[in-house]
Amino acid sequence: MIDLLIQNGLVLTMDEGNAIYDPGQVAVTGDRIVSVAQATPVAEPCRKIIDAANCVVMPGLVDTHMHECLLRGFCEDLPLMRWLDEICFPKDRAYAPEHMHGAALLNQLEMIRGGITTFIDIFRFPVEAAKVVTYSGLRAILSPQIIESVPGAGETIEDSEAFVAEWHGRAGGRIQAWFGPHAPYTVSDEGFARIARLAERYDVGIHTHLAETASEVEELRATHGLSPVEYLDSLGVLGPRSLAAHCVWLGESDIRILADRDVAVAYNPSSNVKLASGVAPIPDLLAAGLRVGLGTDSNLSNNNLDMFEEMRLGAAIQKLHRQDATTMPCDLMLRMATMGGAQALGLDDEVGSLEPGKKADIVLVDLMAPHLWPIFRGPRTNVVEQLVYSANAADVRTTIVDGQVLMEDRQVKTLDPQVVFEAAQEAATNLAQRAGLW
Amino acid sequence: MIDLLIQNGLVLTMDEGNAIYDPGQVAVTGDRIVSVAQATPVAEPCRKIIDAANCVVMPGLVDTHMHECLLRGFCEDLPLMRWLDEICFPKDRAYAPEHMHGAALLNQLEMIRGGITTFIDIFRFPVEAAKVVTYSGLRAILSPQIIESVPGAGETIEDSEAFVAEWHGRAGGRIQAWFGPHAPYTVSDEGFARIARLAERYDVGIHTHLAETASEVEELRATHGLSPVEYLDSLGVLGPRSLAAHCVWLGESDIRILADRDVAVAYNPSSNVKLASGVAPIPDLLAAGLRVGLGTDSNLSNNNLDMFEEMRLGAAIQKLHRQDATTMPCDLMLRMATMGGAQALGLDDEVGSLEPGKKADIVLVDLMAPHLWPIFRGPRTNVVEQLVYSANAADVRTTIVDGQVLMEDRQVKTLDPQVVFEAAQEAATNLAQRAGLW
Repeated sequence: MIDLLIQNGLVLTMDEGNAIYDPGQVAVTGDRIVSVAQATPVAEPCRKIIDAANCVVMPGLVDTHMHECLLRGFCEDLPLMRWLDEICFPKDRAYAPEHMHGAALLNQLEMIRGGITTFIDIFRFPVEAAKVVTYSGLRAILSPQIIESVPGAGETIEDSEAFVAEWHGRAGGRIQAWFGPHAPYTVSDEGFARIARLAERYDVGIHTHLAETASEVEELRATHGLSPVEYLDSLGVLGPRSLAAHCVWLGESDIRILADRDVAVAYNPSSNVKLASGVAPIPDLLAAGLRVGLGTDSNLSNNNLDMFEEMRLGAAIQKLHRQDATTMPCDLMLRMATMGGAQALGLDDEVGSLEPGKKADIVLVDLMAPHLWPIFRGPRTNVVEQLVYSANAADVRTTIVDGQVLMEDRQVKTLDPQVVFEAAQEAATNLAQRAGLW
Repeated sequence: MIDLLIQNGLVLTMDEGNAIYDPGQVAVTGDRIVSVAQATPVAEPCRKIIDAANCVVMPGLVDTHMHECLLRGFCEDLPLMRWLDEICFPKDRAYAPEHMHGAALLNQLEMIRGGITTFIDIFRFPVEAAKVVTYSGLRAILSPQIIESVPGAGETIEDSEAFVAEWHGRAGGRIQAWFGPHAPYTVSDEGFARIARLAERYDVGIHTHLAETASEVEELRATHGLSPVEYLDSLGVLGPRSLAAHCVWLGESDIRILADRDVAVAYNPSSNVKLASGVAPIPDLLAAGLRVGLGTDSNLSNNNLDMFEEMRLGAAIQKLHRQDATTMPCDLMLRMATMGGAQALGLDDEVGSLEPGKKADIVLVDLMAPHLWPIFRGPRTNVVEQLVYSANAADVRTTIVDGQVLMEDRQVKTLDPQVVFEAAQEAATNLAQRAGLW
């Protein structure tokens, strides 16, 4: 029995050979893909059929670095240090579980609508985020953000361990729980070393911020005589299960260390540009063989969770920075947003491409939009060009995770938008008042 | 009699005092706004009422530099000179009026859907574009792109003069016709001087590309011993009716000349970043008192016509470039996309803000979207932050020009999308084949 058959679409598998089937079809049984092929009559009975005519059928997008924040568009255009000290830390200290509940609802609704099927979050009160994941239907790695330097602004190592012990592998495997030490400047060396041992014991990953700003590098050089990469490496943190977000300010030896340790990197172009952090040396990281995924960072720094914009800006900003329009072409960006992200999170056996045996994490993108037109089909199709350089989150029509349809024809089925809007507004208002920001 | 009353919205007037009415209402009679005010019972009969609850009501967006192109996403990630020589010029030479008809349909449909109410186009066969403008309902300045250096790749001065004579002021004043000498490196000095005299005689503007790339500046210095700005100034081209697109590579003396001549500038962030052209010194141009509008450039270089993305990227890229997150704040960007554009095009008496007596060019943006949430209302509203840093063209719900509703609740009324898709696809396929690109 086929539970779900997606017919008539232009299927971008993103498998190793980059196979395209047009018109193609994808069959799902339970939570797994059972076939991906050129369109052909199906003899088996099908519980549900989705007509994907005039749609791209592609793997769900993988967001490899984000915080489920609440106060979007609240205090913009401030210098980074004022923004952190006057807005972010007071706000983070004011967070209570009910605020995180509103944040998780709002962020997960936006992700479903934008075709993100897997995300890794690093923020507060992960139990609240996890509870929402159980019914939103998304695939998530939740890494409680551990901060030691500002009391009450983050999670503790103890709470994180309890969360990992309780939540890792829950929701039929959709939820993973990792450790999330915030950054070299907010977690002590003892803290990092302890987290590395715990992550090994629980066999989970470590998600951290690394070399995001020039001042971070300067500061660590002044206090420890090491670059942020050298510092974390000296503490035994870096390895194939560690995911480093940003990695903007790296020297050649840093890149060598990251490659030797097989660290995965999350590239966050919108955040790095808007916060004036810099341009990460992604072409060099790729050349060194590193796994690189794309991230939205957060609705505070981005300000939306639109992975299509990340693909476009992620390519364009490198072209500008290297003064070379051939850098980071569109097929590379689409791979980074799907299979690259899955590899970065160690999930590439399960998601990131449409292949038989993999989890059915699938999105449909509607091509009947003037900004995606014309579409040339056939062997020299320009569909990847349109997806990367012109599409937006709003073009996603249908989002499927584990074979469950979370959104169909723009109607989200697992969350009620009206309920989410009200909960998020109430939580945001209360949080802003508590933090003394309103 | 009120022909159109827009009620219950959050009205951003973008007038000189930046007045906001929430809930506000805008009344239209004929093609003009007759009142903009806090919501109040209306005694007069109203022919049509639009409920703008949960919407922003704001001036239509003004795109101050674009080409109505057709072959979007066709040949990406090429070096600029190969792209120009192998793609752009062969394509432009292959253009026939029927291709331009398809291009105009496609581009104008996308603009209506994205809340652009006024655009200035510089491209081929302007009569085809003008004909579509007569029924799409948009406000347009059409400036036939004059190219002398590549025979057959652009319009001639003679054809341009005939177009200006015939079309300037048509469609109830919605159409203006200007001269569009492509650039200092594609039009001769005699050509530029002649165009300047013609523009004065017909009392219309001149729209050109200026100082877009570093190589343009080098080349002109080598051949003429002048910067592009100095060169055009020496030919009598620069004045308050001239609009210079890009202006990326300017020296201090160039900025002084542009300011002395009161030239208007079109800032095209997406194009400048994606084509690796550079970052225009917009903060310096604004400090010098220049009028600056935003432009999308074209679906070849952008690749969409999303003015919200231009606002966001236009701010973010300056923040990165100047290493200062306070540069180009969001309220400045929203002004640039509306009133700033109107000023750049010399249309600020007619459009660019919602004020009694002005043309009724109005858009509604739907705020009930997770990526625009939460919304704080009242005196410290964050609605401008959400519009600039998170909204997209797809959030525009209703587009009105001259009091005529071109799109309502995402349904375009003046163009049939299905007809546009078919015409554009056929034209694109034929053009690609004719140009030997397919």
